[in-house]
Amino acid sequence: MTKAYKGREIRLKSRPQGEPTRANFELTEVSLPEPAEGQLLVRNHFMSVDPYMRGRMNDAKSYVPPFQLGQALDGGAVGEVLRSRSPDFKEGDFVVGNGGWREYNVGDAKGYAKVDPKLAPLQAYLGVLGMPGHTAYVGLLDIGKPVKGETVFVSAAAGAVGGLVGQIARLKGCRVVGSAGSDEKVKHLREKLGFDEAFNYKSGPTAEALERTCPEGIDIYFDNVGGEQLEAAIGKMNNFGRIALCGAISQYNATTPPPGPRNLFLAVSRRLTLRGFIVSDHRDQFPTFLRDMSGWLREGKVSLEETVVDGIEQAPEAFIGLLRGQNTGKMVVRLASSPT
Amino acid sequence: MTKAYKGREIRLKSRPQGEPTRANFELTEVSLPEPAEGQLLVRNHFMSVDPYMRGRMNDAKSYVPPFQLGQALDGGAVGEVLRSRSPDFKEGDFVVGNGGWREYNVGDAKGYAKVDPKLAPLQAYLGVLGMPGHTAYVGLLDIGKPVKGETVFVSAAAGAVGGLVGQIARLKGCRVVGSAGSDEKVKHLREKLGFDEAFNYKSGPTAEALERTCPEGIDIYFDNVGGEQLEAAIGKMNNFGRIALCGAISQYNATTPPPGPRNLFLAVSRRLTLRGFIVSDHRDQFPTFLRDMSGWLREGKVSLEETVVDGIEQAPEAFIGLLRGQNTGKMVVRLASSPT
Repeated sequence: MTKAYKGREIRLKSRPQGEPTRANFELTEVSLPEPAEGQLLVRNHFMSVDPYMRGRMNDAKSYVPPFQLGQALDGGAVGEVLRSRSPDFKEGDFVVGNGGWREYNVGDAKGYAKVDPKLAPLQAYLGVLGMPGHTAYVGLLDIGKPVKGETVFVSAAAGAVGGLVGQIARLKGCRVVGSAGSDEKVKHLREKLGFDEAFNYKSGPTAEALERTCPEGIDIYFDNVGGEQLEAAIGKMNNFGRIALCGAISQYNATTPPPGPRNLFLAVSRRLTLRGFIVSDHRDQFPTFLRDMSGWLREGKVSLEETVVDGIEQAPEAFIGLLRGQNTGKMVVRLASSPT
Repeated sequence: MTKAYKGREIRLKSRPQGEPTRANFELTEVSLPEPAEGQLLVRNHFMSVDPYMRGRMNDAKSYVPPFQLGQALDGGAVGEVLRSRSPDFKEGDFVVGNGGWREYNVGDAKGYAKVDPKLAPLQAYLGVLGMPGHTAYVGLLDIGKPVKGETVFVSAAAGAVGGLVGQIARLKGCRVVGSAGSDEKVKHLREKLGFDEAFNYKSGPTAEALERTCPEGIDIYFDNVGGEQLEAAIGKMNNFGRIALCGAISQYNATTPPPGPRNLFLAVSRRLTLRGFIVSDHRDQFPTFLRDMSGWLREGKVSLEETVVDGIEQAPEAFIGLLRGQNTGKMVVRLASSPT
């Protein structure tokens, strides 16, 4: 008789109004079923918290269905195969998939991919070598189309995506300017990630900071935040500039829609392109991304930045903290069952 | 001794604050100089008034320099060569160039192109076969990239550009919806220009009208107006929709910037592209445009719509009326000296 596993998971207890609170979440212990044919039982070592999850907590139609009340949340997680009923995986394989917000997951093998723990620490597959890394890569290269010597501005630059956007842009020969929400993060961008300029957007109007840090204007703006920073960036864009619309974290908790950029009309006279994108539309590019990014990582050209929180019971706090900008680099939760 | 010509011209007397008034303009008579080597003397038959001219009346940097106080305005005009000091033109040629807001113009031959009065009435070269026609063609085909069966929404659809956007979109097999500012214009769009649906944007919220007229959503929005209609269109865009940002006539007279679209964040989840463009960047495409559009015109697939005002002294009123939406189709001024 095989061992029966019990594990904890986080469920959505109620839908957040505005900023999420601990009370919106519920921790429960469940008994894991035996994997059926084609399924895996995975012990998660790390789970991801990501800004896009806030949208799924609302009961609204979007590109991913909303989370259901009373059910476990899900999201990226990386772990170890305990049992496999798929010919493609064996016990002991390390895998990444969508079984997050729980300590163990039983799920279809099709939703998992193997990862190489010798190439990078496991949690890197939730960040630099995972969805956030791929997002930075696609948004900067495909939407932004950087040309050597151009100026790239990225907001939330100390976040999982923003930090990589800046580092890739530097590799492409661009001048890179980033904004972040604390002086420590600004220092980190300048000293650790090689940004040419960085500023704390809470210290004053972004328009003034861009005036100072982008004297030759902005050619590419990678927008993670929307709101005031988007408007300020539009005001400083050069002709034929590109804006990759990746997210709008400044607005995710908004209960009434904030005003849009008052200067959007400048897009006509300056021939700007604003393009929204979702990384999952670009899956065909994932192997190329993984090859490039793991190369850069190995050569030390890109650094792995992370903020680690311990224990599944802390996952709601990690998520709430993420929306408040309490992370530098990728925010992950190390699960209690993890042996690392 | 050659005859000396005298003619009237309109000068910018003061910069408009908000909506322009007659007092911002000044009518003066001038003696025309003899054309120098490489120049032409042209008698204008028709001059154009266009929304983009409002921006040039402000003292602001843009893609064209501002008009200068105390000097004649300029803009598109079509006329007849009276004297040529260029080997490329001869007396009696009909030409289009930038010598508008005056009855006669002396200007460089390089700024003129010959037109064929047998192919279409002269004033067509200021509309369907000129800059507005080229704008509709480039914006719809290059930016919008219409696919048969898609829904195209165009605002200011009874204007010079909008009416052509709708007609070209129909030729490309699209379902076409237009907005305009009066019930007469709406009737005109449906009955004369073949729009599938049209609505009067002054009769109620645009969002409701789009809900009714675009049940399957919008794939391409050709934006001539900005403001409320842009926000409403974003709200109804389908995934991977394209928005050609051509103008924002609802805002040209604004003295404080109106709020931008509060739902721009939808561009991310719906993967929208918003792209501003200026027709003069696409000059290399002009011959292709002219071939296509004159073919459609000849075959009766596109109709020539115009509102004609008589006399250069009426040009300011024509322009002010244009900004108020008093035209259907291209607004032109027939000049007093015209023999037609």
